[in-house]
Amino acid sequence: MKHALSVTRDADFAAWYQSVIAEADLAEESGVRGCMVIRPWGYGIWERIQRLLDDRIKATGHENCYFPLFIPLSYFEKEAEHVEGFAKEMAVVTHHRLVPDGKGGLIPDPAAKLEEPLVVRPTSETVIGTAFARWIQSWRDLPVLINQWANVVRWEMRTRMFLRTSEFLWQEGHTAHATADEARDETRKMLEVYRSFAEDCLALPVVAGEKPENERFPGAVATYSIEAMMQDGKALQAGTSHFLGTNFAAAQNIRFQNASGELELAHTTSWGVSTRMIGGVIMVHGDDDGLRVPPRIAPWQIVIVPMLRDQPEDEALIAYAKDIQSTLAGLSALGEPVRALLDLKPAKAATKRWGWVKKGAPIVIEIGGRDMAGGNVSVIRRDRLYRADGKLDAQVMPRGDFEAEAPALLAAIQQALHDEARARLKAAIVPAADFAAVEAHFAEGVKNPGWVEVQWARPTGAALDAVVERLKALKLTIRNAPADAAAADGVCVFTGEPAVERVLLARSY
Amino acid sequence: MKHALSVTRDADFAAWYQSVIAEADLAEESGVRGCMVIRPWGYGIWERIQRLLDDRIKATGHENCYFPLFIPLSYFEKEAEHVEGFAKEMAVVTHHRLVPDGKGGLIPDPAAKLEEPLVVRPTSETVIGTAFARWIQSWRDLPVLINQWANVVRWEMRTRMFLRTSEFLWQEGHTAHATADEARDETRKMLEVYRSFAEDCLALPVVAGEKPENERFPGAVATYSIEAMMQDGKALQAGTSHFLGTNFAAAQNIRFQNASGELELAHTTSWGVSTRMIGGVIMVHGDDDGLRVPPRIAPWQIVIVPMLRDQPEDEALIAYAKDIQSTLAGLSALGEPVRALLDLKPAKAATKRWGWVKKGAPIVIEIGGRDMAGGNVSVIRRDRLYRADGKLDAQVMPRGDFEAEAPALLAAIQQALHDEARARLKAAIVPAADFAAVEAHFAEGVKNPGWVEVQWARPTGAALDAVVERLKALKLTIRNAPADAAAADGVCVFTGEPAVERVLLARSY
Repeated sequence: MKHALSVTRDADFAAWYQSVIAEADLAEESGVRGCMVIRPWGYGIWERIQRLLDDRIKATGHENCYFPLFIPLSYFEKEAEHVEGFAKEMAVVTHHRLVPDGKGGLIPDPAAKLEEPLVVRPTSETVIGTAFARWIQSWRDLPVLINQWANVVRWEMRTRMFLRTSEFLWQEGHTAHATADEARDETRKMLEVYRSFAEDCLALPVVAGEKPENERFPGAVATYSIEAMMQDGKALQAGTSHFLGTNFAAAQNIRFQNASGELELAHTTSWGVSTRMIGGVIMVHGDDDGLRVPPRIAPWQIVIVPMLRDQPEDEALIAYAKDIQSTLAGLSALGEPVRALLDLKPAKAATKRWGWVKKGAPIVIEIGGRDMAGGNVSVIRRDRLYRADGKLDAQVMPRGDFEAEAPALLAAIQQALHDEARARLKAAIVPAADFAAVEAHFAEGVKNPGWVEVQWARPTGAALDAVVERLKALKLTIRNAPADAAAADGVCVFTGEPAVERVLLARSY
Repeated sequence: MKHALSVTRDADFAAWYQSVIAEADLAEESGVRGCMVIRPWGYGIWERIQRLLDDRIKATGHENCYFPLFIPLSYFEKEAEHVEGFAKEMAVVTHHRLVPDGKGGLIPDPAAKLEEPLVVRPTSETVIGTAFARWIQSWRDLPVLINQWANVVRWEMRTRMFLRTSEFLWQEGHTAHATADEARDETRKMLEVYRSFAEDCLALPVVAGEKPENERFPGAVATYSIEAMMQDGKALQAGTSHFLGTNFAAAQNIRFQNASGELELAHTTSWGVSTRMIGGVIMVHGDDDGLRVPPRIAPWQIVIVPMLRDQPEDEALIAYAKDIQSTLAGLSALGEPVRALLDLKPAKAATKRWGWVKKGAPIVIEIGGRDMAGGNVSVIRRDRLYRADGKLDAQVMPRGDFEAEAPALLAAIQQALHDEARARLKAAIVPAADFAAVEAHFAEGVKNPGWVEVQWARPTGAALDAVVERLKALKLTIRNAPADAAAADGVCVFTGEPAVERVLLARSY
């Protein structure tokens, strides 16, 4: 069978990834170093992600705010670990005016140099912490539960669209609590919001758990993540939730008077997911014909392509198609009105069909004169594109039947994408009892090795550094300690000591 | 009658404006020069504006995208007028890393200086034009109709929250067309979208029309605006739509092959509204008790305050209030589900009531034990807060009656706010037949002079400069030439020549 993309996942996964992004009109290089242009279909997916996740963030009691893009250097200097983690990749604003350079160009005006340089936010703990210090006086002011949707900048040396770009879009939640227990509960609650959102909305099976010490967010006491498995077996960290203890509160002076009148430091958290999730959706659900978008996050769930011929009969065909579109738009699927598009762009029907296949619209229906005459539509399900004989599986069915089944069909596609990815994830996590087994599993030349689960003694400091170095030789990192893993019952694969937990080892993005 | 704010509009309009922003929890100074923190109630209003305006932008065929925050200097240098208009207020990124300064602080790393400085976008014509040049090859690719919701930075010397901040949030639409006529139509269509959005959603009566040459967007052929009148009689430009002709297309090389195979320059437009609109809502609808938010953009339309007493009876009262909330949330008003909040925060009922009055929630209902016993609620309408005798107008009515009337009541409040502002606008625009009349109208000491409408000959170049100077002496600017004004039938108040159109003169923000 011939596929819509010129490069397959199997032949070159990295090239395939770029090709999906281009062919599905998701994004493109902008000409500005490390920054991408997110095109309508890619941005439409992001808007769906925003809408669905925002509902869940609000349903758990958080309110949206907006904080400045610029952060004065002095704000960063207060939290040593934090600044060390980010200083190497910060975009710095130093001037506020341009003047002609006398050669027809422009230069930053030396007379308009800022007294204190401003950093373009790489994350907003410091500037939001400063606001928290203003807002929080008493235990009655707690908890403070806020979120912001924003752009952030981290000057990455090697960029890859959606996965690692100098500028990216995200949401960052920030909360302050009276007790450490409450803050830890919040950290885990938001991890669970991310986990269930990824599973239910993105059809992305993930493993939720705590990151090891060396992978913590700079300044955090504990970092939790959801990890998804791409089709090349690599892990993608798709969301993180941090318990910050009193580290940032101490640096930013976030104190409150408790019920007994004593001053205490607040306990804070932060948590975020970004446009990186779209990279995960591509690498989990894409196939050799392009992207497959889970119906919940598809900007258009059903695309109707009438087979126009620049003939007078077109008019009746368009009327028939419009009627179907308006019927579909009146239905509800997966808890929301169905999003059905009638594609009347000036292009050939076959070109449009394959365009929507590459974009990954969950259902494409084609309507020709014969379909209309028979009161039928021809239905293509993006998750089951081909028949067993390799031919395109376009099912002709009575229009009324399709309309009646469409909501259930969309739900079935959402579920099918999830089940397929879940089965792949499950099959590709295998245990390794000792380090030799890990080395064998990830030996050179083994294609798509997936992840291994090992038991370890959770070493810290220099002992952990040694473990990280051994893993580096295999290009591995510790992803997280799955929250739902069985209790440890063996020995640490690194040290031979009694193990305390299970962790996942993987190559990663 | 005693008011909730300590400063009245009449006593000091500017101080009153700041006090509404603070007391209604809309925004606050961030500590970062010229940048504000938008707090939950203010951001909630912005989210409502986004949702409603985005629907209209999409309904007119536009798709959302996202373009880079950073624009290389060289992109700006291509359009001379444009860069001249913005160069004086641009934030410039020159470094991509920080290093310790040896004194415990940080400095931009001299070894990490960018080869080409990057400007933080003040507006995106140049970077989006570059993308258009990639996207557009043939007449079949046109029109391109896109929009982006983003933050932009203009380094303003004097800032005022919402009205003029260094960083602000906005949407910017950008389109490319095959003909000048089509582009002009688009420019006017989006102006009309803004006009009807301001009137219908923000309850903001506005005057739509073309700006004079001296007020054009840098690089534009024509600029149109909607102008709103604040309660101090000043004008606020609340949205603009620009016909850019082929100026940007020539600079960015946006060319297409027409149906005859010849290369032509595309005709482009851009249009935007920003968080400034919230400043307009405050200054049009606010009163001496705080903000009054039109129901369509109110994050919460009905707030329920049970009068709790830390007694066992509270439980029944909360259950009663919850039941009312859920009934209200099941209703639809102004085309959307009713947004009803049950306020259970730990504060006194009277404090909460006045908090919501200051925030401007359209309806506040209070419920005490006696109300519950009688099956009643006590209803406060924010747009009619006091009775004729100066006392708070809280109307006790059967719960069922209130629930039945709530949707109509919200619609009535939306309409009442609009009508009140419309009447004020209409009364405060007066004609002036000659310049002496203009001078008399805006003589020193005249409080709240409103706007005058004059006829003029639409001078250009040096003649226009002279007019602008004469107006400057009166602190006036030409706002726009109202699209719905009567035809000119007199002489130009500035030159005595035959007039060609009517324009509005006003002081402005």
